[in-house]
Amino acid sequence: MRAALALAARGLGRVWPNPAVGCVLVSADGRVLSRGWTAPGGRPHAERIALERAGDAAQGAVAYVTLEPCSHHGKEPPCADALIAAGVSRVVVAMEDPDTRVNGRGVQRLREAGIRVDVGLFEDEARDLNLGFVLNRTQGRPLVTLKIASTLDGRVALSSGVSKWITGPQARAAGQMLRADHDAIAVGSGTVLADDPALTCRLPGLEDRSPVRVILDSRARLPADSVLARTARDTPVWLYSAPGVGAGPLEALGVRVVPTEPDGDSGRPCVRAVLADLARSGITRLLVEGGPRLHAAFLEAGVVDRIVWFRSPSLVGGDGLSCVAPLALASLAGRPFFELVRTHPVGTDRVEHYAGARVSRRQPPLWE
Amino acid sequence: MRAALALAARGLGRVWPNPAVGCVLVSADGRVLSRGWTAPGGRPHAERIALERAGDAAQGAVAYVTLEPCSHHGKEPPCADALIAAGVSRVVVAMEDPDTRVNGRGVQRLREAGIRVDVGLFEDEARDLNLGFVLNRTQGRPLVTLKIASTLDGRVALSSGVSKWITGPQARAAGQMLRADHDAIAVGSGTVLADDPALTCRLPGLEDRSPVRVILDSRARLPADSVLARTARDTPVWLYSAPGVGAGPLEALGVRVVPTEPDGDSGRPCVRAVLADLARSGITRLLVEGGPRLHAAFLEAGVVDRIVWFRSPSLVGGDGLSCVAPLALASLAGRPFFELVRTHPVGTDRVEHYAGARVSRRQPPLWE
Repeated sequence: MRAALALAARGLGRVWPNPAVGCVLVSADGRVLSRGWTAPGGRPHAERIALERAGDAAQGAVAYVTLEPCSHHGKEPPCADALIAAGVSRVVVAMEDPDTRVNGRGVQRLREAGIRVDVGLFEDEARDLNLGFVLNRTQGRPLVTLKIASTLDGRVALSSGVSKWITGPQARAAGQMLRADHDAIAVGSGTVLADDPALTCRLPGLEDRSPVRVILDSRARLPADSVLARTARDTPVWLYSAPGVGAGPLEALGVRVVPTEPDGDSGRPCVRAVLADLARSGITRLLVEGGPRLHAAFLEAGVVDRIVWFRSPSLVGGDGLSCVAPLALASLAGRPFFELVRTHPVGTDRVEHYAGARVSRRQPPLWE
Repeated sequence: MRAALALAARGLGRVWPNPAVGCVLVSADGRVLSRGWTAPGGRPHAERIALERAGDAAQGAVAYVTLEPCSHHGKEPPCADALIAAGVSRVVVAMEDPDTRVNGRGVQRLREAGIRVDVGLFEDEARDLNLGFVLNRTQGRPLVTLKIASTLDGRVALSSGVSKWITGPQARAAGQMLRADHDAIAVGSGTVLADDPALTCRLPGLEDRSPVRVILDSRARLPADSVLARTARDTPVWLYSAPGVGAGPLEALGVRVVPTEPDGDSGRPCVRAVLADLARSGITRLLVEGGPRLHAAFLEAGVVDRIVWFRSPSLVGGDGLSCVAPLALASLAGRPFFELVRTHPVGTDRVEHYAGARVSRRQPPLWE
């Protein structure tokens, strides 16, 4: 199952709206017969690929699958049926599919066909791996990861706005790697106007892994001659603006403009409304790259599941630009907490991975 | 030598103006005969204690000492002479004494007496341990350690000033532990006026380990009824103020008032002048507890050797109080860099130990 999970991870960022699944077929005497993982675009599914590669040898084999095989007729016949037809003797499943169209029915179907099914091996790891898909199906929003690159004192730029470079080249490359395993990247209009970024993954060999580019831009200020607008037909750009804002020229360039209810007095697009639309559109993993106001908006909405924090071992002082805009907390007790999951060096900087899942799991689904 | 270094560390914070030294006497057949470390107040020295405990058994023994034995007649006869008189056969020294009164003469004296002397075993560790003493003797200033307790985004309080508590009880206790192995703690007048702190070590069993309390307070605003002023006869309070500021009432309470040249336009006491006076007064290890303006002043002066950073895994946002006041950097290249030496959990928080020694070693001695 550990091998199946590693295979599944290959799909992260490139299989949405489907989950990233891995499958290993093992013969009765313990040999690995074949391996499969969800193909880019979400199809074929992992089980189908592994079965095809094993051929007749699948007869009597044990299938290790990171997610319950599907039982419904989507664009392909159900994987549960394919496993039954191939004659596997046993299926080991890491976790049930939270999708209401499956949700135990795949397991049931296999059992009804006389196949032994065990559920729960490496379940925590499988849930962690596919947390984006799980949140999409259970809470109607994608997994939200904040990316921050700051000094030790939490600054992302000098007061003059100079931010090149807070972190070193290895940390910046690792930041681009993050883009490759997310379905979409979000930035605020301030970042777009200040930096005119491409927001693509430009690492050698990963150029085709650029996620959907999401702009929260209530006044649709994205210039028609910006890099983002000009490349909207190559890599999608989805722009969330206030209803009634004219964005015809941007739409003509291929930008998907989504009128979104504003968030209270701020006039900015409501984060939870944006997330609900992203989930409906199939996005399972969202990387929020900033700037500080967008980070603050996601923290205030209580929807930050993870933070990946690149830290330069240096200080800029209190006049530097804060990594997170004001949160206007009434008390210390109300501040958001996270949990350090792991930390390691990256070049001369360090990266820290935080989880705030316990916070987000307390949130009700967005459709409630 | 490793054991001798561990013994030496027991003296940190309580032996100034002397170095913290450890000594282990080992017999010719490898048995540990006795151990010694510099006594509180700086005397007797480690070698003398170990020799006394070993008695006649010291004849022919090997002495492991973390610092070159002294050769000058201070308040006691030189330790080099005591080792010769005891008849030790060999002395292993971690590092030479940087004090100009010794500086190789202790080793020379032992060798002239026919004793084999080896220098340099665990030299880096010994230098690190006694860096306060080394800096005092070579640069005319104490070792400077900043203590910071902040959120992940580098905040030490809400905008309202509420700071109780950013970190948890274990981190706060670890912060008090730091006081025990420093000779002096420095705070700015803002912190004193806002918090009326005692700045003592109140951990059970360590109540007698409270360091000298150093206040940088150009206008001598320390109230006569503050905890610090009222307890100045129990635990010393040294107040660095601008020349000509009337502080008679504070002096009457036992506060040592030190008129100090101001630092350029700010009017605040010049950090390097304060450090020079502290070094002359025998302080080897200074813990700078804040607030943010004092941290900034020490960083700007380029004299921060270490940072001990307690971090709560939470965020407060850009309206919180910054851990370091503005540094007014002209470019990112000019920001201070540090090196992470070690990090570990402390309760639900983490502590990070940084070294900036390479920076401070580039500084010329304060008397140049």
